[in-house]
Amino acid sequence: MKSITPALIRRVIRPRQAQSYKGTYGRILIVGGNARFGGAAILSASAAVYAGGGLVSVATDRVNRDALHARLPEAMIIPYDDPAYIQLLATMDVIVIGPGLGTEAFALQLLTATFAAIRPQQTLIIDGSAITLVAQHQLTLPKAQLVWTPHQMEWQRLSGIAIAEQTPAANQFAAAKLPGTVIVKSHRTEIFTPTDAYQNPVGSAAMATGGSGDTLTGIIAAFIGQFGYHDDTILAAVYTHSAVADAVATTHYVALPSMVITELPRYMAKISTLPLDESSRH
Amino acid sequence: MKSITPALIRRVIRPRQAQSYKGTYGRILIVGGNARFGGAAILSASAAVYAGGGLVSVATDRVNRDALHARLPEAMIIPYDDPAYIQLLATMDVIVIGPGLGTEAFALQLLTATFAAIRPQQTLIIDGSAITLVAQHQLTLPKAQLVWTPHQMEWQRLSGIAIAEQTPAANQFAAAKLPGTVIVKSHRTEIFTPTDAYQNPVGSAAMATGGSGDTLTGIIAAFIGQFGYHDDTILAAVYTHSAVADAVATTHYVALPSMVITELPRYMAKISTLPLDESSRH
Amino acid sequence: MKSITPALIRRVIRPRQAQSYKGTYGRILIVGGNARFGGAAILSASAAVYAGGGLVSVATDRVNRDALHARLPEAMIIPYDDPAYIQLLATMDVIVIGPGLGTEAFALQLLTATFAAIRPQQTLIIDGSAITLVAQHQLTLPKAQLVWTPHQMEWQRLSGIAIAEQTPAANQFAAAKLPGTVIVKSHRTEIFTPTDAYQNPVGSAAMATGGSGDTLTGIIAAFIGQFGYHDDTILAAVYTHSAVADAVATTHYVALPSMVITELPRYMAKISTLPLDESSRH
Amino acid sequence: MKSITPALIRRVIRPRQAQSYKGTYGRILIVGGNARFGGAAILSASAAVYAGGGLVSVATDRVNRDALHARLPEAMIIPYDDPAYIQLLATMDVIVIGPGLGTEAFALQLLTATFAAIRPQQTLIIDGSAITLVAQHQLTLPKAQLVWTPHQMEWQRLSGIAIAEQTPAANQFAAAKLPGTVIVKSHRTEIFTPTDAYQNPVGSAAMATGGSGDTLTGIIAAFIGQFGYHDDTILAAVYTHSAVADAVATTHYVALPSMVITELPRYMAKISTLPLDESSRH
Repeated sequence: MKSITPALIRRVIRPRQAQSYKGTYGRILIVGGNARFGGAAILSASAAVYAGGGLVSVATDRVNRDALHARLPEAMIIPYDDPAYIQLLATMDVIVIGPGLGTEAFALQLLTATFAAIRPQQTLIIDGSAITLVAQHQLTLPKAQLVWTPHQMEWQRLSGIAIAEQTPAANQFAAAKLPGTVIVKSHRTEIFTPTDAYQNPVGSAAMATGGSGDTLTGIIAAFIGQFGYHDDTILAAVYTHSAVADAVATTHYVALPSMVITELPRYMAKISTLPLDESSRH
Repeated sequence: MKSITPALIRRVIRPRQAQSYKGTYGRILIVGGNARFGGAAILSASAAVYAGGGLVSVATDRVNRDALHARLPEAMIIPYDDPAYIQLLATMDVIVIGPGLGTEAFALQLLTATFAAIRPQQTLIIDGSAITLVAQHQLTLPKAQLVWTPHQMEWQRLSGIAIAEQTPAANQFAAAKLPGTVIVKSHRTEIFTPTDAYQNPVGSAAMATGGSGDTLTGIIAAFIGQFGYHDDTILAAVYTHSAVADAVATTHYVALPSMVITELPRYMAKISTLPLDESSRH
Repeated sequence: MKSITPALIRRVIRPRQAQSYKGTYGRILIVGGNARFGGAAILSASAAVYAGGGLVSVATDRVNRDALHARLPEAMIIPYDDPAYIQLLATMDVIVIGPGLGTEAFALQLLTATFAAIRPQQTLIIDGSAITLVAQHQLTLPKAQLVWTPHQMEWQRLSGIAIAEQTPAANQFAAAKLPGTVIVKSHRTEIFTPTDAYQNPVGSAAMATGGSGDTLTGIIAAFIGQFGYHDDTILAAVYTHSAVADAVATTHYVALPSMVITELPRYMAKISTLPLDESSRH
Repeated sequence: MKSITPALIRRVIRPRQAQSYKGTYGRILIVGGNARFGGAAILSASAAVYAGGGLVSVATDRVNRDALHARLPEAMIIPYDDPAYIQLLATMDVIVIGPGLGTEAFALQLLTATFAAIRPQQTLIIDGSAITLVAQHQLTLPKAQLVWTPHQMEWQRLSGIAIAEQTPAANQFAAAKLPGTVIVKSHRTEIFTPTDAYQNPVGSAAMATGGSGDTLTGIIAAFIGQFGYHDDTILAAVYTHSAVADAVATTHYVALPSMVITELPRYMAKISTLPLDESSRH
């Protein structure tokens, strides 16, 4: 497996071009957050905003509106059972589905409707309970730019490989059967693009806390919104999440999602202004 | 076109006079924030409070009450469908209409009622979907001190000039037909007063993120509330918004509205205490 | 008129005694915050908590619950129309009534019920619209330890003295007719105890912003809860509010209530650890 | 009585092992927060998250959802009257019951149901009004790993010993009759394990403020979730709470729960990286 390099990160996180506007940096929709897991959608959306996504909306249970706006007035909201959801979906560049979505009947219905409506040039990041639902219901996968972000148990459900047998080779073999890129999250996260396998060299157990995975989905979405759907973009998002958490963990016993989110803009500023040839030094 | 100068900013942002009270610094009303875009009204109001507005109220959908107070207990709230709205409007010095207002039937009704009720000595800042509504419905404009804050697409709707053809000369010609001052927001924002044309020399692509425009409206409102309705006041508000964002962007990849809002009081303190003759140095 | 001295502040803000518990530092109730002015009650309660009050509760419109807890989980809440309100009132040491209360029929009813239920050993701080209601309705004043905190317009309503004629002598004459201590807020606040008249030597126009008065009520309540109902306690509270705002204003154009509230514990720590004989140096 | 030593703290707060995931650090459930005391549950949950608990859920009155998520998106929520509560309970490692629970009929019903459902290998921390309910209703105690956290008045209710007579010897005698560990909170907190008695050497009157006790419950829960149910774990949690408050109090007159919570991860990072043999120096 290859390791993600700092030089790659520097190439991806470019200084912004003067002539641009918010639409330049992606229209992003986070779909998730039922009445029990609303925080997951809030964290995903917050990460998307702080990682530089241009315009971030959240489709969620309406009980989560107040908390979302109180934390993140930069985001827009639509109740995920609003008939206008499908229309809104069509205007998006990158969609995350799954954080805090749950596995109840409505979640399945929303996932199915989303799969049916998504178009090939859109990116869809499939996370959390959305992965479980795909595994349980053998859903027809949409023709779109896909990214999967299972943790080990979700990967077991999706791939059929028991956690103890999730070797890089077994994982790569299973990932190759899925369209798009698969990120198997563990203490050493592996990323399987359609052509290659990578390991994330950074990150630590300080990230082992509720909400870390949700945060990652928002970063990936923002990166694709800004830097395009490329393998490098996804690799840089995974690396950035862990690198920022490592920085937080130098002074904090746990790297909580809200801490990582707050630090994202500083880290990205630092990387984007490194000379391209010195990038390996940060 | 003229460029806005630091010396102008220093002349506008004066130290406060000892003998004053909160009413001295303006009664400001933000009208906007429907059930989907509540954050826009919250950001506009937050900017108005942090930029020094004396008393800030928000007329918004009642679903936004909790989030507004949780973020900004300094502001007051009235549901925008409350019959007392028109009465409250009459007590205001500066009104912003548009951030997150939407373009649905109720928004049009509220805009029309506001236009009908506004009086000549009041300032009305017309933003976002309120501009779109004016363009779509050929509304009769009120006799008041007007400020328009379209982004390029809204300016296309209002002026009929396609984005690609929005040259300074074309913009100035179209702006001259509108009462008041027109601020055409882009990566180099232009300001057309009734007599002159200016370009904003500061700001960067770090501001290209959801909520930047809402933030600007609150700063303009607070500046007019404190420093009066003058060309210089409006120019200083535009410049201040971008200068603060530039300061934030030295260490952050994106200059999010909530970061810019937090920094406003520090920037204004620094400017207000510069000697008048050294103002060009900041 | 006498000036409040730093030495007095130091005498009041004492280091805490080791053998104590939260009840030692006062049970405080903030009564206010209707559906339009909920922020006022939140700011008053926040100031009471951050100024060291032992146990702070808020009786307010139930629409303000979410925002209060989101900002200040340290406080407890009861809807002010809950029948248990009067019972709760009886357990309190210090009550603030008025911040954001409004002047509608229910506000008058609540004020009247509170006046009827209050007992002589309790302290009642009467602020904002509660003052206006007393002036309008010639209410019978309760036998309790009273503090009045009118701004100039409220003082005009209460005393009958037009703002332009509010000289120290006229104010003192009118204040002497009221039971308790009267604080007439202006750019140089005056405090009239039953026996003496004081002027606040600190504070600035940076405090001329919505919510400053609400913040003061919370500080007074917390100080009385901790240091007892004495003239010095009230004087120290007024001085502390302005001194903290002055510190904030050295780097901020406006000293917003939330900034002042955050800084209260630092200021009080600094004062409480000054040697008693060096107190005049801070 | 023995004193808790810094060396013990260092042994408990270990660096995390690389090969771990969020489940490794405990599934924690906070049960409490009625309509009046919602902040208590929020503070307990916040302390559990910031002290490193792996996955934190809150069972509370549904009116507290917005405020909980607005402050702490890392937590999950279930209304405590949801039929799924008992099912959720079964998946937990550590449960706190009591912060802001109140003593009304539903609270008793919830406590009784929890006692009936809890299993021997689960830890149950009994706090606040849950202790009062146990004392009032002579409830049958569950067979589980118990921790009791009464303040002096609750201890009087539970043990029958009047506050003035709560000597270490009397307390130890009464504590020995209860299963599990008893923490009697006062200005010098005492901890009675099944075999030993300890006194907490740190802490100060700056902690005498509403919410301190709630914060302690969350820290204990997180510590047991991460470090196991041992006497040392509980002792370290009590010490850590006070040591962090002492650090806050060097610059703040009151050590508010939200300040203590924010500082927890820094303190734990510092301790966990001390050499084991130098632990006595921090």
